[in-house]
Amino acid sequence: MIKLFIFGITGKIGKMILKLIKINKKFIIIGGVNKKNKIKFLKNYYDNFFKKNKNCVFIDFSDPFLIEKILFTSKKYKIPLIIGTTGYNINQLNIIKEYSKYFPIIISYNMSIGINILNFIMSNTNNFLYKYNYNCFIIDIHHNKKKDSPSGTAIMLSSKIKNLCILSVRIKNIIGNHIIYLISNYEIIKIEHFVINRKIFILGIFYSIFWILKKKIGCYSMYDVFFE
Amino acid sequence: MIKLFIFGITGKIGKMILKLIKINKKFIIIGGVNKKNKIKFLKNYYDNFFKKNKNCVFIDFSDPFLIEKILFTSKKYKIPLIIGTTGYNINQLNIIKEYSKYFPIIISYNMSIGINILNFIMSNTNNFLYKYNYNCFIIDIHHNKKKDSPSGTAIMLSSKIKNLCILSVRIKNIIGNHIIYLISNYEIIKIEHFVINRKIFILGIFYSIFWILKKKIGCYSMYDVFFE
Amino acid sequence: MIKLFIFGITGKIGKMILKLIKINKKFIIIGGVNKKNKIKFLKNYYDNFFKKNKNCVFIDFSDPFLIEKILFTSKKYKIPLIIGTTGYNINQLNIIKEYSKYFPIIISYNMSIGINILNFIMSNTNNFLYKYNYNCFIIDIHHNKKKDSPSGTAIMLSSKIKNLCILSVRIKNIIGNHIIYLISNYEIIKIEHFVINRKIFILGIFYSIFWILKKKIGCYSMYDVFFE
Amino acid sequence: MIKLFIFGITGKIGKMILKLIKINKKFIIIGGVNKKNKIKFLKNYYDNFFKKNKNCVFIDFSDPFLIEKILFTSKKYKIPLIIGTTGYNINQLNIIKEYSKYFPIIISYNMSIGINILNFIMSNTNNFLYKYNYNCFIIDIHHNKKKDSPSGTAIMLSSKIKNLCILSVRIKNIIGNHIIYLISNYEIIKIEHFVINRKIFILGIFYSIFWILKKKIGCYSMYDVFFE
Repeated sequence: MIKLFIFGITGKIGKMILKLIKINKKFIIIGGVNKKNKIKFLKNYYDNFFKKNKNCVFIDFSDPFLIEKILFTSKKYKIPLIIGTTGYNINQLNIIKEYSKYFPIIISYNMSIGINILNFIMSNTNNFLYKYNYNCFIIDIHHNKKKDSPSGTAIMLSSKIKNLCILSVRIKNIIGNHIIYLISNYEIIKIEHFVINRKIFILGIFYSIFWILKKKIGCYSMYDVFFE
Repeated sequence: MIKLFIFGITGKIGKMILKLIKINKKFIIIGGVNKKNKIKFLKNYYDNFFKKNKNCVFIDFSDPFLIEKILFTSKKYKIPLIIGTTGYNINQLNIIKEYSKYFPIIISYNMSIGINILNFIMSNTNNFLYKYNYNCFIIDIHHNKKKDSPSGTAIMLSSKIKNLCILSVRIKNIIGNHIIYLISNYEIIKIEHFVINRKIFILGIFYSIFWILKKKIGCYSMYDVFFE
Repeated sequence: MIKLFIFGITGKIGKMILKLIKINKKFIIIGGVNKKNKIKFLKNYYDNFFKKNKNCVFIDFSDPFLIEKILFTSKKYKIPLIIGTTGYNINQLNIIKEYSKYFPIIISYNMSIGINILNFIMSNTNNFLYKYNYNCFIIDIHHNKKKDSPSGTAIMLSSKIKNLCILSVRIKNIIGNHIIYLISNYEIIKIEHFVINRKIFILGIFYSIFWILKKKIGCYSMYDVFFE
Repeated sequence: MIKLFIFGITGKIGKMILKLIKINKKFIIIGGVNKKNKIKFLKNYYDNFFKKNKNCVFIDFSDPFLIEKILFTSKKYKIPLIIGTTGYNINQLNIIKEYSKYFPIIISYNMSIGINILNFIMSNTNNFLYKYNYNCFIIDIHHNKKKDSPSGTAIMLSSKIKNLCILSVRIKNIIGNHIIYLISNYEIIKIEHFVINRKIFILGIFYSIFWILKKKIGCYSMYDVFFE
């Protein structure tokens, strides 16, 4: 059985992982760090537990400022780390990359399979779209409790294409909806991704857990997980 | 200047090529075969003209039963051939392949850039979709003068994916509209292609003319033209 | 508090009503008829209970063959009846209408607010669409456990428009998705309804319960409930 | 035959009217005012011509500052006026209304049939949407030569709904594309209008010409033309 330790265990994603793990016999939660006692690392627990358990994975849906402590612990026990927290600055991203020389890290803005298909499309057609003079834009529709705008996913998708603009709408009840328009002189291509259920993100995490356990070192994206 | 000889010069696509070539100084029409005198090959013309002109391309938007004569002529003068005619049987497709050992051939169900992006997506995500248990279907909407249903394009796109069903609607005024649905447990991906103007097909032919002139032999698709 | 008696209490919709009523203090379930003892009417219960309780509503999501018993009971105690069961033949529909002279009945293929907006649109633009020579079709996408195809909703929507064709797809995971295309010479109108969560149907039932309690007699649709 | 006098005869819409009238035997152009000699009113022509011709209609796709001269002339000869020019200030709109006591005026932001169906939908469901707690937004996509943003049409559509936001994209090649999203707790309604060909606007003008000739006085919209 695979042991999970979750940073941000009382957050939205943390709770969903807990809930879905109850009906999945391949995983067990061995601990986590919640919002209140953020800095409370159970040292004894770590030493006793992680040392003798190979099948451990760290999952991070917490807060950017925690990252160095998480990386330090991951390195110490050589535990693979899956990062879903967003909002890192360039400096932090560089540190993450640096640490990935010692243990494997997956970092992704969006854990869903579908968004990674869109990412694949954008990554592999960008030259094409440029060559044939396509104009592109992305519409990003999310519930109005989402803090960032445009979404990290929209930024990720648009980063592949030159001169792409993003339109963001925040409206109740939409989990996540991205629409990419590719427009040439005489035709329109519209690529839409719509999340029916948040479970899709947890499913992506579950896939990535199996995947990262086969890696020794390196910094990866969900793109690598799905399209390797 | 590139010389074009068009089989099916009085058909819908033939006429559009003629019209658009008038405003394009890179091409000249040196002849064609129309519906009435289908079997009338201007032998003298061929001998005098094609022999000394390297920059010739045959374009075929005629009828499947003409194919052997066209192939024979292409071979004789080593003239590249672009085939947009649809409705070939397997036997004819094999003959086409056989002839492509002597001169280059492009054969495609759909000359538009956009459809070939969709084709790229389907070709490169089929394993993925199967692995992650996606269900797929295609809606094919075309004007009601279109003879075939489902469209050759829908068949081409669906050929990449197992167990994919096609729904066809024939209704006035829609040049060509294909919608691919990819549905998993918790998300929907919708990829739509919409033709604004038939010129897109001619544009694709123009691209393929330049492309085929660089080839010596071989049987290609528009996919090769755009994604080589 | 409003008392509900549910025919088909162990069916899919019956269960959802039970579940949502637990968090809604305006309603109480006073009984129901399940699949096994379909014909078991608790006579004493009825006599004791319904006679002295004005605020009762019957909800029927059971089976067409039960309808006469349900109507008979509704008439006896003058209890309003909301019918969501589908598959009635014309004879049964006439009987339902006949009984609505004695107590109020709502009968509908689709309890969602949104579908009734689409119904409103189709009902009020049909002359218009005909006059201006629009061509129309409906795509009906549902999960593959749905028994009927096309959906009752698609039939209801299409009944307003002449010569309208319906395309049905059955695919996993889609609760309900209807797309209406209205196509004229130079423009396309696309009206799409997508169900995020089945609760929408229960919400519609709750609206209709309040509404029917104000009526004395008559046969109504959800259209009347929402647009009266 | 109906006589048309066009203000803005050399503008984009003016030219299209000229072109389409050539193949329509019900109309004749008797004159117009172009960009250069904007203020040149052919007085003699008017006196001789308009006085004895009942079947005249003025069409205005010129510039807001011309409106008073146009209204003055319309009033003098009692000639119906169709206004497609946009950008009037409130003062000018009041003057237009004032003049409509003497002759009939149609003023509209969008002459297409389809947009007026959307307008009908928005006008007739706004109370409904508010009552049932829908959230709404409009996406307005147009070619990048369009001067105003959001489009007059989007403003018109949104004016019916409280708290509605508009997102505008300007990108090459899109004549006009409006998408209305209506989102409730558990469902999404999406109403999309897409212009295939600009001729739709001219068709709307032609409908309105026949319609206005039956009116004596009053200020109307295309909504009245189509839904009266």
